[in-house]
Amino acid sequence: MSSSQIQATEAYLTELHGGNAKEAADLLLPGNRLNMSKMPVAGMQTTYDAHALMTDSASSATAFACGIKTLSGVIGMDDAKTTSFKSVAQLAHERGKKVGVVSSVSLDHATPAAYYASVPSRSNMNGIAAQMANTGYEFFGGGGIAAPTGSTNVWDLLTANGYEVRNTKESIEDLLTHPRDRVVAINPWLQDASAMPYAIDIDEPQAENNLSLAEITDVAIKVLSGNGGLNTGFFLMVEGGKIDWACHANDAMATIGDMIDFDNAVGMALEFYKAHPRDTLIVVTGDHETGGMTIGHATTGYTAYYDRLLNQNTSFQYFQANQWAAHNAANASGYNYTLPNNLESNTDMIALMADEFGLIYSELNDYQKLKLEDAYDKSMCGANDNLGAENTLLYGTYEPIIVTITHILNERASVGWTSYSHTGVPVPVFAEGLEAKNFYGFYDNTDIAKKIAKIIGITQALPIVK
Amino acid sequence: MSSSQIQATEAYLTELHGGNAKEAADLLLPGNRLNMSKMPVAGMQTTYDAHALMTDSASSATAFACGIKTLSGVIGMDDAKTTSFKSVAQLAHERGKKVGVVSSVSLDHATPAAYYASVPSRSNMNGIAAQMANTGYEFFGGGGIAAPTGSTNVWDLLTANGYEVRNTKESIEDLLTHPRDRVVAINPWLQDASAMPYAIDIDEPQAENNLSLAEITDVAIKVLSGNGGLNTGFFLMVEGGKIDWACHANDAMATIGDMIDFDNAVGMALEFYKAHPRDTLIVVTGDHETGGMTIGHATTGYTAYYDRLLNQNTSFQYFQANQWAAHNAANASGYNYTLPNNLESNTDMIALMADEFGLIYSELNDYQKLKLEDAYDKSMCGANDNLGAENTLLYGTYEPIIVTITHILNERASVGWTSYSHTGVPVPVFAEGLEAKNFYGFYDNTDIAKKIAKIIGITQALPIVK
Repeated sequence: MSSSQIQATEAYLTELHGGNAKEAADLLLPGNRLNMSKMPVAGMQTTYDAHALMTDSASSATAFACGIKTLSGVIGMDDAKTTSFKSVAQLAHERGKKVGVVSSVSLDHATPAAYYASVPSRSNMNGIAAQMANTGYEFFGGGGIAAPTGSTNVWDLLTANGYEVRNTKESIEDLLTHPRDRVVAINPWLQDASAMPYAIDIDEPQAENNLSLAEITDVAIKVLSGNGGLNTGFFLMVEGGKIDWACHANDAMATIGDMIDFDNAVGMALEFYKAHPRDTLIVVTGDHETGGMTIGHATTGYTAYYDRLLNQNTSFQYFQANQWAAHNAANASGYNYTLPNNLESNTDMIALMADEFGLIYSELNDYQKLKLEDAYDKSMCGANDNLGAENTLLYGTYEPIIVTITHILNERASVGWTSYSHTGVPVPVFAEGLEAKNFYGFYDNTDIAKKIAKIIGITQALPIVK
Repeated sequence: MSSSQIQATEAYLTELHGGNAKEAADLLLPGNRLNMSKMPVAGMQTTYDAHALMTDSASSATAFACGIKTLSGVIGMDDAKTTSFKSVAQLAHERGKKVGVVSSVSLDHATPAAYYASVPSRSNMNGIAAQMANTGYEFFGGGGIAAPTGSTNVWDLLTANGYEVRNTKESIEDLLTHPRDRVVAINPWLQDASAMPYAIDIDEPQAENNLSLAEITDVAIKVLSGNGGLNTGFFLMVEGGKIDWACHANDAMATIGDMIDFDNAVGMALEFYKAHPRDTLIVVTGDHETGGMTIGHATTGYTAYYDRLLNQNTSFQYFQANQWAAHNAANASGYNYTLPNNLESNTDMIALMADEFGLIYSELNDYQKLKLEDAYDKSMCGANDNLGAENTLLYGTYEPIIVTITHILNERASVGWTSYSHTGVPVPVFAEGLEAKNFYGFYDNTDIAKKIAKIIGITQALPIVK
């Protein structure tokens, strides 16, 4: 999440609320602004790691959790993978503060892991989850555990360590009024890789049975501030991890949906801050930009058309697993990519694009239609008449027809993408509350851990060897 | 100029200085950092204008010069084009401070104009230049005057108002030791639209006869601080205007060359600041991002290859006017785009790409070669076998073969582009010196004028009607 994701979301909110992102004056209305961008303190951080301009999520999380630059893929250790370092969450816990870790992706994923684990490779998720179960932290919540079994049965270890695992909406919400320490609150619906669903996919009837990231954040705050937490103090890290996943897939609306959910979680933290303004610090940032998202595109020039995003009601992920899977199963048999215009007369697929993404085939130009045709061919039978390098550029590792739908929908809205990976652009930092002024200016991601440690009262300079 | 242009330039400097931008640790070495990003205060500004998320340069300059949001194309007036407003430069001049305006593009272009003119349309450049000649400002320098004749003969008006126009390196540099007020210092070589040449194009022997933006900034400071200027104080605006033009053309190295020249101009200001630290404020920002530049690309993933930029030694502009013009004149007659592989065996063109851009044809993948072939066809005979909308997307309004060369060279270096226009991403602001702390945080571009006015001692709130 960098400036582009924030600005795109605010432009979308402007359209959603009946304003006009083209007439940019409405962008400044408070109701169209995110909680984070209205926070009084703002700064910027560089995100590169010890050996790459484009960091991965393990090294960036290690930087802002432990205060050390490391190698991509490494969590809580140096780039030689020999020395382990303590995170600010671990240091806070040692000093008697309660600690919570929340993520919309799995709890053993890179960012949450950096707050409790030290491993040479983020892919050792069972080892990470085992370290999670041994933290003694008071709260974990959001996604599930991607690798609960392997060397360690993490479910058993959690139980042995006194943790209770809850995974119904009712039992999790019960914590709001009956907080208990050592609880793992896992959202009922885990969509992909043990992650919570994209926010855009949670509508009725799913909303009745699932929690938003904001709702889980509310639970986390109630648990951590309950049972004496107001006296001990607490540290809570909340990650909107699927903002990154949606940007990898170049899906602006899945990104924006999770941006809003994450910002609602920021809103929950702000509610707590308002009740405890002298003791609370909130820091909001991204670990890196993903996708090379830009607020403009060659096809739309100086005009923004965020109204064209309003009718997408599914993420690329949900569409692929459901509507697309059904369409493909019904039509792929005997499909031949050499036949011209397979899509032109395909009323089923044209209706799917309109109904699920708001992409109206008849409004597209010839080149956009050709790109859809090539992508449909590739998705239906694994081949088209493109060069291999062209397909790699156009689709990355994503389902060709779906990433092409979001590319064209997004470019028509004036949102561009250049990559399926992370990028190296600096990232904004927002802060409010106690000692927030420390987050003004332009600094490195390692400085975020160092600033937080100092504010918590850690007198030793970071990084601190475990 | 936004975060991407800054980060790309620092990655390039890292490579240039024998470091390795892939091994990102070198990025933090002070010698690889720009003056601006090392300044102690940093903030961010939103750039949208009164009616567009993607501002133009007239409305953005009006915002940070006069403190008012207006319509694209309008300078120093409201969006109804009925009321004129004073810029901070005009207000400073009224209060007895000397004023200078420097730009690498023409002095009647949008950004410099907003500091002295009020016109309903930026395209009325003769009207703008006439207002320039009537300012009484002490110094103008950099590019020339794009529209010196029309309703007003601006050269005559300048003379009538006591201005001396100098356009040799020797006569301009003489101002360093013999400052005089009311001087217009125009660089000898005006490359395109009365603008100074791209910095990348100034090598021997041109450097002997031309000035860099930094050198003209040095002259401006000497003029403004001479002849009593240290007592009255002075206001100087310096624009690196061709950073924007290079980004419109999606030419990363032309961008980086002018970024370095502009940052050297910042260095000149810092020298003055060091001598007068209690009385000097320096603010550095961009009016908007251009081109949708990103620090990463789908073809290169997580690895940066800025070494691939090191051998470009011409801007797209210079190449088009010289080497390309000659090649085209010699080969276009009778060219037929339907012949396959016109480029594959074209040793002249392949050598030009290698010699002038460092783009080695044999290292490219099949898709990159195909894109070059299509672009070469289009440039040689005005036609290729692409769809019209494909050509619009791939080339914008630029020479197809040249913009394709820079696209492919840039993507191979891990620099992506999404637009030929401005984009709406927020822009960093850096500051150092007197009251610099006012530029911390996240604010609007109109706030920049308001902050400067307040620091200058203007007690009335901006915008102030003329």
